Amino acid sequence: MHKPSTVGLISGTGDQGQGIALRLAAAGNTLSLGSRSAERAGQTARRINQKIGEERVRGMDNHELVAGCEILFLTVPFAHVEQVINEYRQEFSEGQILVDVTVPVVFDKGPQLLNLESGSGAEHLQSLLPSGLSLVAAFKTLPAHLLVEIDSPLACDEFICSDSSSAKTRVLEVVSQIASLRWIDAGGLRYSRSLEAITLLEIALNRRYRVKEARMQVVGL
Amino acid sequence: MHKPSTVGLISGTGDQGQGIALRLAAAGNTLSLGSRSAERAGQTARRINQKIGEERVRGMDNHELVAGCEILFLTVPFAHVEQVINEYRQEFSEGQILVDVTVPVVFDKGPQLLNLESGSGAEHLQSLLPSGLSLVAAFKTLPAHLLVEIDSPLACDEFICSDSSSAKTRVLEVVSQIASLRWIDAGGLRYSRSLEAITLLEIALNRRYRVKEARMQVVGL
Repeated sequence: MHKPSTVGLISGTGDQGQGIALRLAAAGNTLSLGSRSAERAGQTARRINQKIGEERVRGMDNHELVAGCEILFLTVPFAHVEQVINEYRQEFSEGQILVDVTVPVVFDKGPQLLNLESGSGAEHLQSLLPSGLSLVAAFKTLPAHLLVEIDSPLACDEFICSDSSSAKTRVLEVVSQIASLRWIDAGGLRYSRSLEAITLLEIALNRRYRVKEARMQVVGL
Repeated sequence: MHKPSTVGLISGTGDQGQGIALRLAAAGNTLSLGSRSAERAGQTARRINQKIGEERVRGMDNHELVAGCEILFLTVPFAHVEQVINEYRQEFSEGQILVDVTVPVVFDKGPQLLNLESGSGAEHLQSLLPSGLSLVAAFKTLPAHLLVEIDSPLACDEFICSDSSSAKTRVLEVVSQIASLRWIDAGGLRYSRSLEAITLLEIALNRRYRVKEARMQVVGL
């Protein structure tokens, strides 16, 4: 068996970062969690390790994390992705995989998707990447605060897509053990448009039905 | 109780038209099924009545149908919607509801959504409608050939959206009795963008996983 990829979450101290770190660590992965402040990252990592009762998450400065991990989850809001890519541009290296978990939603008379020339947030992000890196879209349609509630089963499907099959395979190796979650391979990166449109619908349904955890399951697969 | 709306399917002899007519009739609705050829419409209607063992569907010429029904399902491929609206423009009348079940998919290196200025097929169709008519989007994410297989339970969710709440309510009165199908109110017509993007994903998943009936269920509602 080959060595598992090293995994890090860039700016993983927010809701979505903590949630993904929790679910990944609870599934048996070791990983690094980054922040601009190594101290803050360390605090979040300790909290996660306490929750799962194992020492699997290590906090560190984002720069160190980006320089050292093979698979990098970009757990910042979409509005910050461009700035983050530019800020750590020197630390990225050939062969790394960036996992985009963001959705370009803005609120203006209800939720709206940003009208991006590239088609989707993920495709926009791909256009910003340093050469030699692969982009994978995942975790786009799972409610962040449900990820954090580690005792609540996800009980749904989640989608992954990328133009790089090998990058998709490596990310699936990391995420596939998350409990009560089925991963669906949605194909190439252009299907991120559908995934982001699903998230928009979920946000709208949460507001309309006064719930918080609308998510998807594909029937017939 | 108020009188139920009269229901018709414009050019309902195709797969999707037959499927919707079958499911609606099996749920207890009486309805009209149109075609350019009244004879062909009559044949399809008889076949549906035989399948459900009741006389609930009547075939007729599209012109007669459009002039006589309050709720009209536009069961033609998206490529034909503009032509159909223009062809029957004289027969439409104020207060009618048009139900858009189409998705603007084209195939070019896999399925693609047409890039429409209005945002979605449904919004494009709304821009073509004679004034005084309401547009409702529904049945966009259900596989047509599953609708036809009346003995197969749908066992999923289907979405409805419209800028007219009253039109949505009237359509829901008609469709809500379909067996093993939960209707989800997705809100205003702009959410048809998400519904069409879901259908695109379903088509891609059907091809990728070599299945035919990928469809959606919302978890957490």
